[in-house]
Amino acid sequence: MLDPRHAILFEPVQIGPKTLPNRFYQVPHASGFGVTQPRAQAAFRAIKAEGGWGGVCVEYAPVSADTDEEPSVAANIRDGRDAAALALTVDAVHAHGALVGIELYHGGDSCNNVKSRHTRIVPSQSRSGVQWGSMAREMTLDDINRVQRDFVDAARRARDIGFDIVYVYGAHGYLMTQFLSTYSNQRTDAYGGSLANRARFQLETLELVRAAIGQDCAVAIRTSVDGRDELPGVHIDDMLGFIAMIEPVVDLVDVTVGSWPEDSGTSRYYPEGHQLPWTSRVREATTKPIVGVGRYSNPDQMAKVIRSGNFDIIGAARPAIADPFLPRKIAEGRLGDIRECTGSNVCIHREEVFNQIGCIQNATAGEEFRRGWHPELVPPTPDPRRSVLVVGAGPSGMECALVLGRRGFDAVHLVDANDSIGGRLRWVRRLPTLGDWGRVIDWRATQLAQLTNVEVITGRWLTTAEILEYGADIVIVATGSAWADDGSQPDRTEPISGVAGALTPERVMAGDRPAGNRVAVYDCDGYYVGSGIAELLAGEGYEVHLVTTHPVVSPTSDGSLEGRMLRQHLHDVGIAMHVGITVTGRAPGRIVGSTEFGDPFALDVDDLVLVTHQVPRADIYRELTADSDALQAAGISAVHLIGDALAPRWISESVFDGHRMAREIDSPHPAFPLPHLRDQPA
Amino acid sequence: MLDPRHAILFEPVQIGPKTLPNRFYQVPHASGFGVTQPRAQAAFRAIKAEGGWGGVCVEYAPVSADTDEEPSVAANIRDGRDAAALALTVDAVHAHGALVGIELYHGGDSCNNVKSRHTRIVPSQSRSGVQWGSMAREMTLDDINRVQRDFVDAARRARDIGFDIVYVYGAHGYLMTQFLSTYSNQRTDAYGGSLANRARFQLETLELVRAAIGQDCAVAIRTSVDGRDELPGVHIDDMLGFIAMIEPVVDLVDVTVGSWPEDSGTSRYYPEGHQLPWTSRVREATTKPIVGVGRYSNPDQMAKVIRSGNFDIIGAARPAIADPFLPRKIAEGRLGDIRECTGSNVCIHREEVFNQIGCIQNATAGEEFRRGWHPELVPPTPDPRRSVLVVGAGPSGMECALVLGRRGFDAVHLVDANDSIGGRLRWVRRLPTLGDWGRVIDWRATQLAQLTNVEVITGRWLTTAEILEYGADIVIVATGSAWADDGSQPDRTEPISGVAGALTPERVMAGDRPAGNRVAVYDCDGYYVGSGIAELLAGEGYEVHLVTTHPVVSPTSDGSLEGRMLRQHLHDVGIAMHVGITVTGRAPGRIVGSTEFGDPFALDVDDLVLVTHQVPRADIYRELTADSDALQAAGISAVHLIGDALAPRWISESVFDGHRMAREIDSPHPAFPLPHLRDQPA
Repeated sequence: MLDPRHAILFEPVQIGPKTLPNRFYQVPHASGFGVTQPRAQAAFRAIKAEGGWGGVCVEYAPVSADTDEEPSVAANIRDGRDAAALALTVDAVHAHGALVGIELYHGGDSCNNVKSRHTRIVPSQSRSGVQWGSMAREMTLDDINRVQRDFVDAARRARDIGFDIVYVYGAHGYLMTQFLSTYSNQRTDAYGGSLANRARFQLETLELVRAAIGQDCAVAIRTSVDGRDELPGVHIDDMLGFIAMIEPVVDLVDVTVGSWPEDSGTSRYYPEGHQLPWTSRVREATTKPIVGVGRYSNPDQMAKVIRSGNFDIIGAARPAIADPFLPRKIAEGRLGDIRECTGSNVCIHREEVFNQIGCIQNATAGEEFRRGWHPELVPPTPDPRRSVLVVGAGPSGMECALVLGRRGFDAVHLVDANDSIGGRLRWVRRLPTLGDWGRVIDWRATQLAQLTNVEVITGRWLTTAEILEYGADIVIVATGSAWADDGSQPDRTEPISGVAGALTPERVMAGDRPAGNRVAVYDCDGYYVGSGIAELLAGEGYEVHLVTTHPVVSPTSDGSLEGRMLRQHLHDVGIAMHVGITVTGRAPGRIVGSTEFGDPFALDVDDLVLVTHQVPRADIYRELTADSDALQAAGISAVHLIGDALAPRWISESVFDGHRMAREIDSPHPAFPLPHLRDQPA
Repeated sequence: MLDPRHAILFEPVQIGPKTLPNRFYQVPHASGFGVTQPRAQAAFRAIKAEGGWGGVCVEYAPVSADTDEEPSVAANIRDGRDAAALALTVDAVHAHGALVGIELYHGGDSCNNVKSRHTRIVPSQSRSGVQWGSMAREMTLDDINRVQRDFVDAARRARDIGFDIVYVYGAHGYLMTQFLSTYSNQRTDAYGGSLANRARFQLETLELVRAAIGQDCAVAIRTSVDGRDELPGVHIDDMLGFIAMIEPVVDLVDVTVGSWPEDSGTSRYYPEGHQLPWTSRVREATTKPIVGVGRYSNPDQMAKVIRSGNFDIIGAARPAIADPFLPRKIAEGRLGDIRECTGSNVCIHREEVFNQIGCIQNATAGEEFRRGWHPELVPPTPDPRRSVLVVGAGPSGMECALVLGRRGFDAVHLVDANDSIGGRLRWVRRLPTLGDWGRVIDWRATQLAQLTNVEVITGRWLTTAEILEYGADIVIVATGSAWADDGSQPDRTEPISGVAGALTPERVMAGDRPAGNRVAVYDCDGYYVGSGIAELLAGEGYEVHLVTTHPVVSPTSDGSLEGRMLRQHLHDVGIAMHVGITVTGRAPGRIVGSTEFGDPFALDVDDLVLVTHQVPRADIYRELTADSDALQAAGISAVHLIGDALAPRWISESVFDGHRMAREIDSPHPAFPLPHLRDQPA
């Protein structure tokens, strides 16, 4: 039942000619689907409308031939074929009563045009950045008119297929921002100079779009309220003036801050609502509805933001990926069921680098069409009279037990040797800045507790013999992995010599500490563990050297938009970084190895933490499956191996693996995923 | 007329049940088209068959769900839809009488499966590499059988749509190599241990494929004859034993060497035919036809390789991209017309990173379908009675004048202020290791000289007034760019202080030299110019510091596969490298700036070379277009701006721009490219 304190979130909001049914709004964000996978796009967005989001948008939609984003995936709206693809999403979202929006876009200096080979365009040639060795050309007045016509044509196309909200995208440093910025706009004609002149391009575009589509759609703008020292960027004082100028012609103001890595800042470095010091000031400049984001999952905070008058509408990208049913759960008062966003940015990494969105919390994100997965519904097992023993309650084991429980198996036992569930996440969440990742455990603990057919048993180490005697029909081994302590490392034949007794991440997190004050953390992994251990030890006063085989520290963090801030942060807390190093040996008081160029490397340290690679713990699985007679005698019909015990991987992928196994456990070969649909253009 | 010395190249070669009509063979290589752009794929391959290549292959074709390469583009052959897409290429190649081949592939440890989320597979888990934080799982016997079935199914699909040659891909470190390698294969079953055991997976696969398709197709293997210290890799002695084992079941042996960056080595670091010390030994192990590559463009060399018995067939990837008509030109004795590959690897960079192949020499590469361009034919101008003045004979100007001449304009004058044509390439080709890039000039000089309607005039500087008086109907400004000498740099508001008199690349190449012995080359560009100048000066005895804003030296060179060898090379010649540095000022005897973390940076040097960014030289264009009365009075109907003078860019893209302008000069808006077709799945 809806808590009255949250009722304000379910008030409708008038957005020009359209009525948003409530204050929940999925802002434009990329998915990897664009118009090349239109059915996946439609299913991905529709699930949010089904989950109660009153407004749902597709991603940035390039309008011109010279804002070609390929091979990145965008929702092009440049011709009828694009429109036909996007119409699938419009209809799918409308079927659930939500408004659907599209974000018309030109990247200007920021697109690359490498596939189309068009010359990039920019307000002022002298301020052109360099993309892939190519500079942009300065826009002529013809270009300005042409791009404006492209926006209008795209808006008409969007209107014709039923979009309710049409954005003119002015945030995140793209062409509109490049015109507004005194850095990138050095024009001396009517489109440069004063704020009114710099605003002219966008204002005219908005007026032309409005004139073309009239009151058929709401017209929205998305804008970076403050550039936060990024180039090109605009200071909030100018932006408030700009917003006041365009306010007569827009129906909705969508506010962001800074560059994208700040706006979509991870939980490691940005708290929820971190944009408010700037975005809250937009009210000074407009009476139109304001939508803003803040990675909000908590309805108390959301209601507070609305009551404060800062925003009229709660925007969300990541929280809506983690839980498409967030609004409905609030409406039903099921606050404990909200699958809270961890702020890991795995979604962004997967979408930007892999062209396939995913989520550390929601294994079904991006799988709606191709695997037919729903975030809240799982098919009941056709044969419930079976018991399943899940050995190991890490990310994959927790998820697998949860989905098996929901599928209605008679008894699901989730057994773990530790005194609480979570597996490696139990210690990962205690690394500096990684606390919010613990939500992966917390949500599953809450959900598992609701299932009467699932029993969670902690503090119990099961031997192979005990598993055979346990009485389960099916056994799932999810015993995880351990960081190697033997000096083995990827891409090397010989192990590191002299590492006996060296620390591993698990040992550090169990309380062991380096001997002496100077410690090297040797990171072949390149994500959060090596840097996390380094920061933990630095915080305790150790002199920490982060030594990595990679050409930069934590390259994987670049995919989650946090690489630069992570490295700056490590530097600021006094960690010395050594890149491109292969460690080959350890002697008393030093480690030795070679540089990227094969030169000798030596570093005087008292101790060493090995973050080389993970070793699956699959002994139980091997022992069980080696003796089919024993399995038969025990009445065990199947034994499966999932998660890190099968192959160490990102937490999001372990969760996915556990989820998949639970859904596909009755397939002919559960170890191998069922085929999924391969989408293609409409 | 065919030179009798080259007649051997046109002998047919029997490949099992198929007859290769001559010894020219385009080996499998990626294009960016795969099966998602099947018409582009078909047109790209068919043009090679038209140009005389007796065999033409498509790229690597994943056979299994757990060798998912997306978002990279491959020629999947996993279902009927893939087959339908590839059938377009088969028919298009056959129409020109060539054989067509497909390279069946499983990446094993090397694929990433990030989109499909399948767990990677590998012969031995303990040797799994780490891709995106994920390790692979060890293949079971079920997996081995399944993957072999996938190869067989794919081979049947390929046969059914008419492929003549079916490869089982065993080179470049992929799954087959992983089984052969004693590093990655630690199995203790029948598939690990002895060479015969390690070869079993591939031998069985070949036998199964042969049994399935019989004599309907030739069966080929592609193999790395020597791993060249890469992991996983196999030494030539083992490989010769392996080739002898599989010889009864294959019809063609396609030989490569080392890892891909070595096999497709650039001209900077690998001479033509650099693989021969290893590949020439394959003859010891087989009597079957051997095809090998060597970046050969010269028919004398090709004939020598055939006569020596090293290879039976001349394989080519890059030379066939640079000149699809290479065989036909040899057949017709038009050796001077061969557009020789420069070995720049722009093709690989464009295909791998941009998903759209291209070429520094051949502007039509990859544009066959979407722009309808033919490498040898251009449409005659509908109105030949016009004269065109091309001002500037750099990459874009040369190409533009050449294409305009071929289109039949009455008179095309290509005028340059320097004493020879080539523009910036005149000095780029004199940078260490970059000599072969000069082929971009040489070929155009030869071709221009053949056109009676084109006049090349060097050593003449044209002022705006002289252009107006020149008598041309159309003027094309291709005056290039210059490296900034004012301290301006990308993404900074303030220029570097105190740089008056600092050197630029052009000044160094014109003979100016640093004052003193210690010199910093400051590189914001990140490709070949900064590193080239640094190497030049180091070779003359200067103490050189290469200071770059980028996180690694020359990141763009990673796209051309040469980043690691470039950096090693710079290190070996004694150049000190400083990465992540922004230079903000120069004072006597030092430069100052900041590190990536904002800390102060200072370096004691005597002089500075600025490689910050390029500034277009478009004054003439601005002056001409500013006075439309004067243009009218002069009878000039149009003035166009192309190449670096419009926007500095890669040489390949400047050549493309000049080519495009010449083809589209009569379009309504020649400054803006005509729309091109957007391909989609069959």
